[in-house]
Amino acid sequence: MTTFIDQDFLLSTAIARKLYHEVAANLPIVDYHSHLPQGEIASRKVFRNLADLWLGGDHYKWRLMRTCGVSEDFITGDQSDEAKFRAFCKVLPLAIGNPIHHWSHLELRRLFGIELNINAANAGAIWETANAKLAGMDTWAFLEQAGVEIACTTDDPADDLMQHDEIAKSALKTRVLPAFRPDRAMRINRDDFPQYLAHLGDVAGVAIHSFAELVTALTRRVAYFHARGARISDHAVDTVLPATVPTAQQLEDLFARRIAGQLLNEAEVGQYLSGLLAQIGKEYARHDWAMCLHIGAQRNNNRRMLARLGPDTGYDSMSDLSISAGLAALLDALDSDDTLPRTMLFCLNPAMNDVLSTMIGNFQDGSVAGKIQFGPAWWFNDHKEGNLQQLIGLANHGVLGTFVGMVTDSRSFASYPRHDYFRRLLCRQFGLWVEGGEYPADLDALAQIVRGICYDNAKQYFKL
Amino acid sequence: MTTFIDQDFLLSTAIARKLYHEVAANLPIVDYHSHLPQGEIASRKVFRNLADLWLGGDHYKWRLMRTCGVSEDFITGDQSDEAKFRAFCKVLPLAIGNPIHHWSHLELRRLFGIELNINAANAGAIWETANAKLAGMDTWAFLEQAGVEIACTTDDPADDLMQHDEIAKSALKTRVLPAFRPDRAMRINRDDFPQYLAHLGDVAGVAIHSFAELVTALTRRVAYFHARGARISDHAVDTVLPATVPTAQQLEDLFARRIAGQLLNEAEVGQYLSGLLAQIGKEYARHDWAMCLHIGAQRNNNRRMLARLGPDTGYDSMSDLSISAGLAALLDALDSDDTLPRTMLFCLNPAMNDVLSTMIGNFQDGSVAGKIQFGPAWWFNDHKEGNLQQLIGLANHGVLGTFVGMVTDSRSFASYPRHDYFRRLLCRQFGLWVEGGEYPADLDALAQIVRGICYDNAKQYFKL
Amino acid sequence: MTTFIDQDFLLSTAIARKLYHEVAANLPIVDYHSHLPQGEIASRKVFRNLADLWLGGDHYKWRLMRTCGVSEDFITGDQSDEAKFRAFCKVLPLAIGNPIHHWSHLELRRLFGIELNINAANAGAIWETANAKLAGMDTWAFLEQAGVEIACTTDDPADDLMQHDEIAKSALKTRVLPAFRPDRAMRINRDDFPQYLAHLGDVAGVAIHSFAELVTALTRRVAYFHARGARISDHAVDTVLPATVPTAQQLEDLFARRIAGQLLNEAEVGQYLSGLLAQIGKEYARHDWAMCLHIGAQRNNNRRMLARLGPDTGYDSMSDLSISAGLAALLDALDSDDTLPRTMLFCLNPAMNDVLSTMIGNFQDGSVAGKIQFGPAWWFNDHKEGNLQQLIGLANHGVLGTFVGMVTDSRSFASYPRHDYFRRLLCRQFGLWVEGGEYPADLDALAQIVRGICYDNAKQYFKL
Repeated sequence: MTTFIDQDFLLSTAIARKLYHEVAANLPIVDYHSHLPQGEIASRKVFRNLADLWLGGDHYKWRLMRTCGVSEDFITGDQSDEAKFRAFCKVLPLAIGNPIHHWSHLELRRLFGIELNINAANAGAIWETANAKLAGMDTWAFLEQAGVEIACTTDDPADDLMQHDEIAKSALKTRVLPAFRPDRAMRINRDDFPQYLAHLGDVAGVAIHSFAELVTALTRRVAYFHARGARISDHAVDTVLPATVPTAQQLEDLFARRIAGQLLNEAEVGQYLSGLLAQIGKEYARHDWAMCLHIGAQRNNNRRMLARLGPDTGYDSMSDLSISAGLAALLDALDSDDTLPRTMLFCLNPAMNDVLSTMIGNFQDGSVAGKIQFGPAWWFNDHKEGNLQQLIGLANHGVLGTFVGMVTDSRSFASYPRHDYFRRLLCRQFGLWVEGGEYPADLDALAQIVRGICYDNAKQYFKL
Repeated sequence: MTTFIDQDFLLSTAIARKLYHEVAANLPIVDYHSHLPQGEIASRKVFRNLADLWLGGDHYKWRLMRTCGVSEDFITGDQSDEAKFRAFCKVLPLAIGNPIHHWSHLELRRLFGIELNINAANAGAIWETANAKLAGMDTWAFLEQAGVEIACTTDDPADDLMQHDEIAKSALKTRVLPAFRPDRAMRINRDDFPQYLAHLGDVAGVAIHSFAELVTALTRRVAYFHARGARISDHAVDTVLPATVPTAQQLEDLFARRIAGQLLNEAEVGQYLSGLLAQIGKEYARHDWAMCLHIGAQRNNNRRMLARLGPDTGYDSMSDLSISAGLAALLDALDSDDTLPRTMLFCLNPAMNDVLSTMIGNFQDGSVAGKIQFGPAWWFNDHKEGNLQQLIGLANHGVLGTFVGMVTDSRSFASYPRHDYFRRLLCRQFGLWVEGGEYPADLDALAQIVRGICYDNAKQYFKL
Repeated sequence: MTTFIDQDFLLSTAIARKLYHEVAANLPIVDYHSHLPQGEIASRKVFRNLADLWLGGDHYKWRLMRTCGVSEDFITGDQSDEAKFRAFCKVLPLAIGNPIHHWSHLELRRLFGIELNINAANAGAIWETANAKLAGMDTWAFLEQAGVEIACTTDDPADDLMQHDEIAKSALKTRVLPAFRPDRAMRINRDDFPQYLAHLGDVAGVAIHSFAELVTALTRRVAYFHARGARISDHAVDTVLPATVPTAQQLEDLFARRIAGQLLNEAEVGQYLSGLLAQIGKEYARHDWAMCLHIGAQRNNNRRMLARLGPDTGYDSMSDLSISAGLAALLDALDSDDTLPRTMLFCLNPAMNDVLSTMIGNFQDGSVAGKIQFGPAWWFNDHKEGNLQQLIGLANHGVLGTFVGMVTDSRSFASYPRHDYFRRLLCRQFGLWVEGGEYPADLDALAQIVRGICYDNAKQYFKL
């Protein structure tokens, strides 16, 4: 029997262990999509204790605690940090098979050298030991200890990126780069859309009264971001995209109606998104950026808790929206103009994995390996089966060796063991293939692919 | 090589064998959702032979026989019981990998101690031996031999539950409880909907001429059922639910049109369902019941056979209907009013598993462990892979230790080995996780979770 | 460790090896659906080299090369055959886990006895050895070496099948039969639809000015094909079918509008397809043919490359279109009239596997084993996991022993090792079930099922 989460965690074959320990384990991390708060990097935040680090803002853990019947007092409420931490430790053993169970143990082992299992009995010892070590660590320490060479944050186009400038000038070894995420420009039906346009217009020096002016403003911000190191854009696509990209005139009409105070219906919101992506996609191509589409989240399902806690607090889930026709239309519109940027497709609903992993093949043009990428197992899919399904699906329908690998997609400085988790799963699967006679035991070829997926490919692909 | 279906069936590790034999095997059964005919319990029915028991009403087996080219004469037709039984035995070996193949052998072993494989050569010996034992068994014997502590039936709101009263007063050790299933009130487009309203109105003492009066009638019946031990309601949701729960006025309008003789279109049927569930859900919450939604069956696909044999005769399949938006809207409407009952979500289409197992997280409120449940592998999904996918999916996205476990969902008194099947799969998976280093070899923690999923959680959750 | 692709490739248990080597390996092939060009059989084409054989028309390999960043020059462009071949060999090792990686090695081993791994270093040696053997092989040699007893091509209803006549009269041992694929009659919105009607009308001796006349023309062509050995029809269904099959009058109206020059909208195209299939399905039943529906491809997603290279060049992917309601309506319409032919359902999107494998059960009528079939893992699904999912899904929801087995669905004469691949996976799965105690170690029963799925069932089912 294997020991729980030891150095060979998930590495079920000799080949897997060799590939992991000799190749994957020590490669630097290129975390090309995260939600790390730039302010906490710039300020070198120190966490007051393990509850602050683990439970301060992690809606994954909040959901888990609510599911176990833990009262909100102990989650986002008024209870003490230690009480919250103990509540978490008490219920975690029930989460057998859950990635948070694995990640939390990995984090204890990697960050603090604590080999204890997390449960009620060990909560006190873990609390003491971890807090003692935490007192000597700031956010930089987390990045450097994990070997993060590059970390991309997620930033609003109107952001001035001043903290990024600060970080860039600092002694931090990790390169922290902004990424362009125009969510607020895309969420046309939100109450604050008009105010956002005004703000964005101010920042970009364009009065935005038309769709074309919005595109102009975003275009200027792309240039601004580019000058500060951004090479990646990112978009939430939570609405069905239409089977035909709308015309410029249709987009102006939709925009004008919204500006006049009308809300659009669901289909019109999809048209607006498609049209906007088709326009700013050209800018990404012009700047040689990669465009990431995060598709298929159904957000803010619980109005009561949205009013109480705001968004990103654990009330999102997977949508079953249809994606194949609208996505093809969008990519084809860009491709037809020869303005399709390198593009990564993520879908939160893994029932769409095969649609995505075959979709990417339609727009590979031989210009660069893996021009269109099937994104790694994201958010709810970042667990053992989710990662393996993504890897095997991509292997079956695409070329796994061109994959750019994992992201944390996380707000937490403690989450880098997710890269370790991914690398172990990758090496595990390679080991199974080789030991099963499904790939030659050619260690040079294998090592090259592993190195590519864990490090080289992302650096080349994103031009970082 | 493992022997075919021996005592360690499906238990591939030492941990699995230990957990199963020492913890799971002998726990009583809480079968919180079945279609057992209450009349056959009250009357202590004796089955005339194994064909009567196995083939008398089991549309799973009928489908299997039709698929093998067996003529309807030998299925629901005029052939003798023995001829039908022999026809079944002859084709069963072709069903390699099918759960009916497993269940049938498990049933022979558990109920009759018959270790023979089912095939044409052994049909005669099985027939003789099983029939001899069957002569001494009535429906009570099945329930008691299987250790069924609680069995919930499925009952129409207009039912007077007299046979439940009889059973409750009898010496039967199993507690048999009614469950509230207002299908006939939900199927607004059925021909007999107006007649049903009249009947329900009579029983409830409310003349039903409006949607509000229908809700009143159902509310009274909830109280009636509650007084007779019901704690669970159950609904077939075979239509897409709208992204917004309709208003009271919209519901009255839909209802009035139907009462006036019009049929509703598909979207309107969905609106009616959503509105009705949003109303009676409040009653369930008031009585502290659990609400079960069985989503995504596509029923009565074969009109010719529906006319000949009626519903539930083997002509249903999975629907690919969209569920994520409508389900969130319904649950949110109830949650916003603080009237969301404990709720179990089942979807017949396993491509929706991840949508469901993430959906439940949106409405966990910390009030009780696993308030919103992802239902066990149901109907077409009740097989090895289906159960494992449900368990692993729930583990990945929720907290498996809060799961309330298995149901038979069956009309058959012989079907309790399905609980055994489930428990073996559960222990198998736990064994694999522990032996793979993915969970600590903490036998106390494991045993507690196993006991919870197999027995404790359901009793607590359903307040039984 | 297992050697890469040796004689026991994929056969992980002793039972699997026994079933494969003693039963499956040497059975003849009934390839009931392929896209082999009849002209290349009639003319006994000889391939000028391995690039001509492998890369001349195989859009699977083209996609793979584009994904690896290989320029179109080396794919469909002007580079030399050897340069193209070397480009393919160079990138293939990146495709770890991809079926093309497996198939290509299987083909080298089976067709040419070459045991080398495909990569840049071995490209020269493979090129020399394979080309030397290829010089002595024509298309007949491929068919005979692979043991192809029957191969069905894919033919337009207007085809005169003259080359089939030629082949039938030749000494070729393989029986090459036409199959009826009225794609051009189904794609009502295509530009050349009117011209096609004129052509089909000429060939059939019917002036086609109405939907009824189109059906008459197709009916005549069914008889023509039947007289030349066809027993199978095949249809691409790329559009959502309506929940109700349209009436004759609706179909005439749609047809009239299209003939008058209007294009139909998406819903109307679906209505037309449903109505046409409901009509010609009756003809297939009358001739005792099997009807194949290939559902869910999303074709020609890349307009730029469609204009440059035409269709079937590697720019198709999976659609997520809804299928459950429309398919049931179509099959029920035929069944209600007692004119439902034996039918095979394929869906390119494996997220629909369970919908299909339960749908078939609705229309099994006991007339013949497996009257309605869940088609084998097709196109993008023809890989290890895809085949296993199809086999296990069918086992779970249907009766695997009635399955008619694999097809190449290929344009390539080198693709018969895909049958070998399938047979290995089948035997692998059977071995796992037996060694896991999930099926009796009854070698006679197992051998009979294997023989059925690999050979007997298809011959009986298709009446070949």
